[in-house]
Amino acid sequence: MKAKELAQILNCELLGNGEIEIKGISEIQNAEEGDLTFLTNPKYKKYLKNTKASAIIVEKPIKEVEITQLICEEPYVAFAKALSIFYPETLPSPHVSSKATISSSAKIGNNCYIGDNVVIDENAVIGNNVTLFPNVYIGKNSEIGNNCVIFPNVTIYHNVKIGDWVRIHAGSVVGSDGFGYAFSKKERQVFKVPQTGGVVIEDFVEIGANTTIDRGTIGNTVIGEGTKIDNLVQIGHNVKIGKYCFIVSQVGISGSTKIGDFVTLAGKVGVAGHIEIASNVTVGAKSGITKSIKEPGIYAGFPVKPYKEWRKVQALIDRLPEIYEKIKRFLSNS
Amino acid sequence: MKAKELAQILNCELLGNGEIEIKGISEIQNAEEGDLTFLTNPKYKKYLKNTKASAIIVEKPIKEVEITQLICEEPYVAFAKALSIFYPETLPSPHVSSKATISSSAKIGNNCYIGDNVVIDENAVIGNNVTLFPNVYIGKNSEIGNNCVIFPNVTIYHNVKIGDWVRIHAGSVVGSDGFGYAFSKKERQVFKVPQTGGVVIEDFVEIGANTTIDRGTIGNTVIGEGTKIDNLVQIGHNVKIGKYCFIVSQVGISGSTKIGDFVTLAGKVGVAGHIEIASNVTVGAKSGITKSIKEPGIYAGFPVKPYKEWRKVQALIDRLPEIYEKIKRFLSNS
Amino acid sequence: MKAKELAQILNCELLGNGEIEIKGISEIQNAEEGDLTFLTNPKYKKYLKNTKASAIIVEKPIKEVEITQLICEEPYVAFAKALSIFYPETLPSPHVSSKATISSSAKIGNNCYIGDNVVIDENAVIGNNVTLFPNVYIGKNSEIGNNCVIFPNVTIYHNVKIGDWVRIHAGSVVGSDGFGYAFSKKERQVFKVPQTGGVVIEDFVEIGANTTIDRGTIGNTVIGEGTKIDNLVQIGHNVKIGKYCFIVSQVGISGSTKIGDFVTLAGKVGVAGHIEIASNVTVGAKSGITKSIKEPGIYAGFPVKPYKEWRKVQALIDRLPEIYEKIKRFLSNS
Repeated sequence: MKAKELAQILNCELLGNGEIEIKGISEIQNAEEGDLTFLTNPKYKKYLKNTKASAIIVEKPIKEVEITQLICEEPYVAFAKALSIFYPETLPSPHVSSKATISSSAKIGNNCYIGDNVVIDENAVIGNNVTLFPNVYIGKNSEIGNNCVIFPNVTIYHNVKIGDWVRIHAGSVVGSDGFGYAFSKKERQVFKVPQTGGVVIEDFVEIGANTTIDRGTIGNTVIGEGTKIDNLVQIGHNVKIGKYCFIVSQVGISGSTKIGDFVTLAGKVGVAGHIEIASNVTVGAKSGITKSIKEPGIYAGFPVKPYKEWRKVQALIDRLPEIYEKIKRFLSNS
Repeated sequence: MKAKELAQILNCELLGNGEIEIKGISEIQNAEEGDLTFLTNPKYKKYLKNTKASAIIVEKPIKEVEITQLICEEPYVAFAKALSIFYPETLPSPHVSSKATISSSAKIGNNCYIGDNVVIDENAVIGNNVTLFPNVYIGKNSEIGNNCVIFPNVTIYHNVKIGDWVRIHAGSVVGSDGFGYAFSKKERQVFKVPQTGGVVIEDFVEIGANTTIDRGTIGNTVIGEGTKIDNLVQIGHNVKIGKYCFIVSQVGISGSTKIGDFVTLAGKVGVAGHIEIASNVTVGAKSGITKSIKEPGIYAGFPVKPYKEWRKVQALIDRLPEIYEKIKRFLSNS
Repeated sequence: MKAKELAQILNCELLGNGEIEIKGISEIQNAEEGDLTFLTNPKYKKYLKNTKASAIIVEKPIKEVEITQLICEEPYVAFAKALSIFYPETLPSPHVSSKATISSSAKIGNNCYIGDNVVIDENAVIGNNVTLFPNVYIGKNSEIGNNCVIFPNVTIYHNVKIGDWVRIHAGSVVGSDGFGYAFSKKERQVFKVPQTGGVVIEDFVEIGANTTIDRGTIGNTVIGEGTKIDNLVQIGHNVKIGKYCFIVSQVGISGSTKIGDFVTLAGKVGVAGHIEIASNVTVGAKSGITKSIKEPGIYAGFPVKPYKEWRKVQALIDRLPEIYEKIKRFLSNS
């Protein structure tokens, strides 16, 4: 594809030679002739001078180097689109493996790929154009919408409802029991709280690898439309996550917490149970959220504070030895 | 079931109309007519006024609203029991799938369900009334006691001994190698320390999803009777956990550490190796335990301190900017 | 085996009765007659007096007790070697299960064990002497080198290249999509960034259970030769880890970060994306690395600092209540 054709498809302004042939996409430091590359993170600007790429997607015209430029307001979006043009995902062709076990009461849509050793239990419903990779388990009464892709060794328990265009990566578990026990002092015994609810995963959700989403105790755990969940994330029972949230790797969200829309929780954030996080909240990595967050904004720390306050506190913590020396000197002098 | 009948079974005092028919159980904010609900967390008291529930389990009589009340000392225990009455777990009926592979030297008890693609290796012993969901792997010489339930895609390595009434959720791994390597400066080489021990899981233990429990290097890793482990927890080699502990999601316990009975580790707690934690210790979320804890009590922080001390330190950290301003003003004035 | 024979094999100096028969290896506190034990961690010295072991591996001669001693500079290395002599790993004998699915375009080396329900997809290449435990999935075009052991329920996606002598424990996932999304404000839409790269795992790597390693967006995620990764670790897309690193349980490394050789990240460390960590860096448990580390050394804290600085800060944090009292008294007196 010529650079000028690509620029048109990606809605970019073209600067330089549009006749150049683009054969693939590479990172700026590894690009070869014929490659398209991109620059969105200023950390990588240092590679610009020596890149062998034939064209680059950028936000603003670059003067330092002579290279065909595709200029647009949102270069990372254009880069994502370019990748899907050059490297479209190739899923296995529709086919139901003879080694899959499909309950006679289950319903399977059209054009599905059902891999080897997949087990689909009683009354489960699988939509159209669904890809179930080998060794996936779908429990009783669970529903998978259209165009979903479920990677190997995923476990979907019973009574889980998954919407359309959902992707779930290998090893993830949806619908395991929540962590609920009632300790009786009187009877000196621990009773399991039966986890009788389900899980609802709305359209366009993607779930990473080895993530766990517990079923509700009563009522459902809900993951809202378009929300993206990374690897090794823990979602407790009856958690409700809104739409288009980003939940980064190793986050843990305790039971019954409600999260609004467009919330980002960075890596390793911990969230207490039974609290609410407003929409449009972003929380920095490794933070701990112990109380409800009512205002949109950026937060960090443990317990979490508005980001600017946290920065102030953090800076003072780092200066504690110096400040302490100053105080000590003063106290001994006075 | 009538409210008065339920009250009797749950050992609750009845207040109000006992003839009312209970058809199900719901959360207080979602309850419909015919539902039983419960109130244990004061955060949910605000829903009391408008709940449509027909009856409620509470600790003390409520005057604000007219509703049939089941009053008892431990309402959360009564709620757990009520759930098991209304929604008893339905496990698959006993059946050995023709797609399971059972070694000729393995022993399988009576009334077991062995799902599709389950693999039971040489000399493994499975007790009575055991449920092994699809794609479970049981290694050589491992033993599963009576009445256990093991969910899909669980891996039990060799030489693991599991007691009675144990539940292990999907994707969990029991018996993987501990993280042991010996680095030789002399030979400039890393040697693997063979992990030759096993794992013992005592009766009534429940293990969440995608949790990992390493085998001992020599000797066993041990999970004591009745201990409950949440999702995505890491238990290192030769760890010994006592009886009736609660290990919440994303906790990590390093090798050879010994934990007493009735210990609670909240979410994301990290525990160093080769230390001891006394019985009846509770540790707050995200804490880091680097030294042995010898006294029962509540602890938090990193490194962990008695909870009250931690609160004091934490409060002062949050006030650092204000305190620093005060000091600066004083120093510049004097 | 006689103690003197063992001493010779392990290159240890013998002290005491070399004719004594060694039958097994035990921890110092549990050893019985005929057992060899070892002492490397001073915490266990207290068990020395009462140990029933017949011989002990130590760095320096012990005078307190009469016991056959194997003395060497690196006792933990000798212990590791002794374990592999007494308890050699017994892997299943070469055999290809009739229940495995092997694509007709895949190539399988000699002397492999391919367990039940293993699925090997198109054009995958498996080396010689490879052990694939039941329920392993190997994706299209992926290559597994010689002498690898892959435990049950592991998922290797497509285009993953694994070297020789690699071990991957149960439930781990290699090659899942990185967490990449481009949010367009203009189009008010989230675009998935296709993850089109692969993963390269070099020789002698060991990966624990339920760990996740994402594929590169473009280019590869790379785990260098001899690096050891523990359980429940998250490795983001395009991360490059050097040679002979130790990545302990529950560590998370964000996308595109580069880690040198001989780096140790202790449990639960979090590493930001797009940064670099020099070779020979060691980082304490629960630390957070937000910026590049350019100098070898020991670091800790969040954000990470040189270990000694962190200790100072940490000590002052713990003393905050006391220091604050002093200041308050002074200010009120002056």
